[in-house]
Amino acid sequence: MNIILLQQQDFSSTTEVCISGLRAQHINTVLRACEGDQLKVGLLNQKLGSGVITAITSNSITMVVNLIDEPPPVCPVHLVLALPRPKMLKRIVRTVAELGIKQLTLINSYRVEKSYWHSPALLQQNINEYLRLGLAQAGDTVMPQVNIEKRFKPFVEDQLPALADGRSAYVAHPGICNATSPKAGASILLAIGPEGGFIPYEIEKLQAGGLQTISLGERILRVETAVPYAIATLTPG
Amino acid sequence: MNIILLQQQDFSSTTEVCISGLRAQHINTVLRACEGDQLKVGLLNQKLGSGVITAITSNSITMVVNLIDEPPPVCPVHLVLALPRPKMLKRIVRTVAELGIKQLTLINSYRVEKSYWHSPALLQQNINEYLRLGLAQAGDTVMPQVNIEKRFKPFVEDQLPALADGRSAYVAHPGICNATSPKAGASILLAIGPEGGFIPYEIEKLQAGGLQTISLGERILRVETAVPYAIATLTPG
Repeated sequence: MNIILLQQQDFSSTTEVCISGLRAQHINTVLRACEGDQLKVGLLNQKLGSGVITAITSNSITMVVNLIDEPPPVCPVHLVLALPRPKMLKRIVRTVAELGIKQLTLINSYRVEKSYWHSPALLQQNINEYLRLGLAQAGDTVMPQVNIEKRFKPFVEDQLPALADGRSAYVAHPGICNATSPKAGASILLAIGPEGGFIPYEIEKLQAGGLQTISLGERILRVETAVPYAIATLTPG
Repeated sequence: MNIILLQQQDFSSTTEVCISGLRAQHINTVLRACEGDQLKVGLLNQKLGSGVITAITSNSITMVVNLIDEPPPVCPVHLVLALPRPKMLKRIVRTVAELGIKQLTLINSYRVEKSYWHSPALLQQNINEYLRLGLAQAGDTVMPQVNIEKRFKPFVEDQLPALADGRSAYVAHPGICNATSPKAGASILLAIGPEGGFIPYEIEKLQAGGLQTISLGERILRVETAVPYAIATLTPG
């Protein structure tokens, strides 16, 4: 945690917060903070700033906060991701928030195991927890929006063309890359397949929906490596 | 595993291999391969090619292999990394191999916990296992070299200047970036600090050793996100 991420319900007055649980534990055991110490804080979907500890016990911390800084710039990429296996999903959702991506759509694909859709990792409360971990790591407050689309064809036929419209839209796929680079500052849509990749039918449907194929090189990267690699490639500087 | 990574000792004749353990398990349970099936294979530090299964049981597989393809191009980056915590080390070492990095030096830093140096994850046999997982993922055969430097100052003073010489040499550090971009095809040295970053003294020593500071943006990324992000940034296209 590079900031302590606050929520509206943590406030006991306009400037005082009282927090407990994991965040209090982090402040006590990792930061080893004391009364009077100043910490970086941020309010969910609001500004960043500092908090001065006015009372501290092993499981509860009171701070007076001053929120004056804007969150960092967002990453202009809408990421469309074939649902990864649950263990990887947790890490990837956190990474998405960490990279400043604000739009994530999880979709089905032929090579996504059906059981993945029943994982507790997909529950909104768990997704939100992973996202908050990523925001707290990156020093950001703006919660990404996560959409879950369990049916590939209706998503690709009915929603994707509108999402791709006006964006530089890509699907990462091994092989020849004929895509044009995104213009500086362009809004981007990027689709990344499951372990093993999208099947040819799916690539055709994604192309028909307006996506160009890009290659991330000769190597086949794990999804959790491909996401930061592709984001850095598409949004240089 | 996108290839089955073979070792010299797997060969029972010049073209026949017999494998067991994790790889046999993967072929049986993930690939669900049968006699006569053709798999992608590669010989450690040698060529890639195909293997045709001639005999298969639940724990042993015999293949006739034909190795004719060169491994993919290497990533021209020597990565110098403050030793991460053991759980993260495993993933990062695998990612290093996956990205095609062939030189990794693990160093000490003020913010590296001393206990990390005693982790079994640092044993050569375990490091090699993580590297092989990364190679098998990426479809590469060339084993990266991993050096372990437990003392920061002797490494930075005695070895770093020679490593940086002739390379575009960087340390990733939040803040203003005055670095020049690497020339296309240049050999690169990149240092990445621990969680919490290098301390100012260490940054000064790294700069004195010939490294320029580069920023990866306003966000503070976890090391496992920063590595692929920085590699894509420094070695575009």
